[in-house]
Amino acid sequence: MHPISFISDFGLDDEFVGVVHGVVARIEPQVRVIDVTHGIARGNVRAGALSLLRAIQYLPEGVALAVVDPGVGTARRPIAAETPWGFFVGPDNGLLAPAVAMVGGASTVVALEDERFRIPSLGGVTFDGRDVFAPAAAVLAADQAPITELGPALPNDSLTPLLLPLVEPDGDGIRGEVWWIDQFGNAQTNIAPEDLAGLGVERGGSIDVRIGASEYELEWVQAYGDVEPGEALIHIDSYGLVALAVREGSAAERLNLTEGHQVVLVRG
Amino acid sequence: MHPISFISDFGLDDEFVGVVHGVVARIEPQVRVIDVTHGIARGNVRAGALSLLRAIQYLPEGVALAVVDPGVGTARRPIAAETPWGFFVGPDNGLLAPAVAMVGGASTVVALEDERFRIPSLGGVTFDGRDVFAPAAAVLAADQAPITELGPALPNDSLTPLLLPLVEPDGDGIRGEVWWIDQFGNAQTNIAPEDLAGLGVERGGSIDVRIGASEYELEWVQAYGDVEPGEALIHIDSYGLVALAVREGSAAERLNLTEGHQVVLVRG
Amino acid sequence: MHPISFISDFGLDDEFVGVVHGVVARIEPQVRVIDVTHGIARGNVRAGALSLLRAIQYLPEGVALAVVDPGVGTARRPIAAETPWGFFVGPDNGLLAPAVAMVGGASTVVALEDERFRIPSLGGVTFDGRDVFAPAAAVLAADQAPITELGPALPNDSLTPLLLPLVEPDGDGIRGEVWWIDQFGNAQTNIAPEDLAGLGVERGGSIDVRIGASEYELEWVQAYGDVEPGEALIHIDSYGLVALAVREGSAAERLNLTEGHQVVLVRG
Repeated sequence: MHPISFISDFGLDDEFVGVVHGVVARIEPQVRVIDVTHGIARGNVRAGALSLLRAIQYLPEGVALAVVDPGVGTARRPIAAETPWGFFVGPDNGLLAPAVAMVGGASTVVALEDERFRIPSLGGVTFDGRDVFAPAAAVLAADQAPITELGPALPNDSLTPLLLPLVEPDGDGIRGEVWWIDQFGNAQTNIAPEDLAGLGVERGGSIDVRIGASEYELEWVQAYGDVEPGEALIHIDSYGLVALAVREGSAAERLNLTEGHQVVLVRG
Repeated sequence: MHPISFISDFGLDDEFVGVVHGVVARIEPQVRVIDVTHGIARGNVRAGALSLLRAIQYLPEGVALAVVDPGVGTARRPIAAETPWGFFVGPDNGLLAPAVAMVGGASTVVALEDERFRIPSLGGVTFDGRDVFAPAAAVLAADQAPITELGPALPNDSLTPLLLPLVEPDGDGIRGEVWWIDQFGNAQTNIAPEDLAGLGVERGGSIDVRIGASEYELEWVQAYGDVEPGEALIHIDSYGLVALAVREGSAAERLNLTEGHQVVLVRG
Repeated sequence: MHPISFISDFGLDDEFVGVVHGVVARIEPQVRVIDVTHGIARGNVRAGALSLLRAIQYLPEGVALAVVDPGVGTARRPIAAETPWGFFVGPDNGLLAPAVAMVGGASTVVALEDERFRIPSLGGVTFDGRDVFAPAAAVLAADQAPITELGPALPNDSLTPLLLPLVEPDGDGIRGEVWWIDQFGNAQTNIAPEDLAGLGVERGGSIDVRIGASEYELEWVQAYGDVEPGEALIHIDSYGLVALAVREGSAAERLNLTEGHQVVLVRG
């Protein structure tokens, strides 16, 4: 039995998540399901893909079940992919691609079309999380069928990619983007510590941060405790990326940031 | 060991849910507990009953532990019921009746009064979820005692029913009710596709929806993708019921709907 | 295998909680993790400590993993403590001390410094929940190493205490404090039924409650059902403490209470 790690935008206010757990347990009671998070903003494929990408290295090898699916009922395919880490199950809309690439790419990809492994519709639209993805994840977790039985094979390089921006030079600085704002308002960027080094800044130095028409001079510190409560800072976060934060506060509020916002960093 | 499927209005901000899991684990560590949802609106028995009714067919046979209990401390009885699906444990206030009926009715019903299977009070009010319902669910899940030991038998048809409205003719249309608004604002009604057929409407046709003094002409479509983003629609949802939705939006907000609202549908 | 009971201020909107579950499962897939709550207000050590204190007697013996850690990156030590109940793992900032004391005190305390049982940093700050506390909890839950291998021993009485106020006389009454306001607005105080008895009040009697400049005359009742919907009341809650509540409403809103607020009770 492999564990299933389950991430979605289902929220916890309705029984959607519980029903998926139920479907898995009906197929194989011994399979364990870990809830990664169900707090992805509704339909935000990029936020789901980045959350899965951050989490994957910490999840037990097995099955990753990911459902953020604004195009349910459209042409995007429900797929399963086999990788060195294990199986990925979800919609082929860019949600899975970054994590699949990170763990080494797919050796098998199938479209989840075989009706034997789907729950019959109750007459209306399909709830793919419950009727298509959960059964596929359970079957793979329990080794009840090889992945190739779940539907027709697709090319291994056919996963829909997620377009992620690169860090680029911008005048005397670099331009990156906010990838993630967590629920506490911490803003992770796509900028690596090496990019800061390229600006000639070292930890302890100061950095001009330009966000839209605003500019802030922030210190690059090791830990929140290095600044006063309520003060903004730059640090390398626990994923090794440059992040903007406010000690005991919210960088998103203070610096007026949202996910996808561009930020330009210049030596201060 | 049977799994326990647990639904409540406890929310997740306090340790109520965790403590119930703990009580079960102290009685029998091997019992698995599936959280169906704990986001039922506080004290809303009808919403809890309908959520359990929607979920039950997808939950593994075993024990359903349901606690939405505005009358805690009043005369409603704590009960357990045996059914073809398994056991139901909760307050006898209408919460359990629809799901019990759906799985075939109760063959045994008892009042949870035997002190051997209750956690002694700490001197104040009883937290029935923790002190009465969780121990009963754990004992039944682990087959530690037959249901008849948990307390005195009640008539099998004694469960307090939940009164649910029927769809009725209304002039040249039909009148139904909103049963459920999910956290995304989708509004499920108690109207079946057959009722629409009775109006002479087919999928692809248009329907006048009257809500209070407002009237909307909506298209009956197969999937969200059949209308433009932001547009309202009628479809058959994944439970096979007529629902009002807005693609990438909230029907509850757009159409000013709440649970229990009446809707009249007329051929458009 | 001992179960881990996990409480934090991580919230559920991001993947923090899921990643901790993942880290545990990677170390030992058979260990069960019970989520006590992750809804502790961010950085509120006292609220976390009181939640753990209320819950501990209902949790299965094993490992308590508690992370509310506003001082991450400062001098407070990550610790593990062995007690008659089992192990406690978390920051030494007062979070663990009340529950450790309640279960009989620590027989061994260590600082979690041994790198063999930590996840290497990705180059930035450490996410202690993921990198330090989760591995320690998993190792202890799975008996993979004795606690003394996790780091240098500390004195058994060295846990940072949490200062909790006592109930004191105040004129012709007693002065206590609101310890906990749950998500429904019920306000638990640190006042025991014996304190009320000391005022010469019995159940059914009335009590003057003074909060700041306001004064309310409330009845001491057994159950919510003893007052009208919307009415405020005093009762002994399910933890055996004096609490202020409103039937089908919020005492916090009605009486304008927050955690830490002082209340003076006088015979009415």
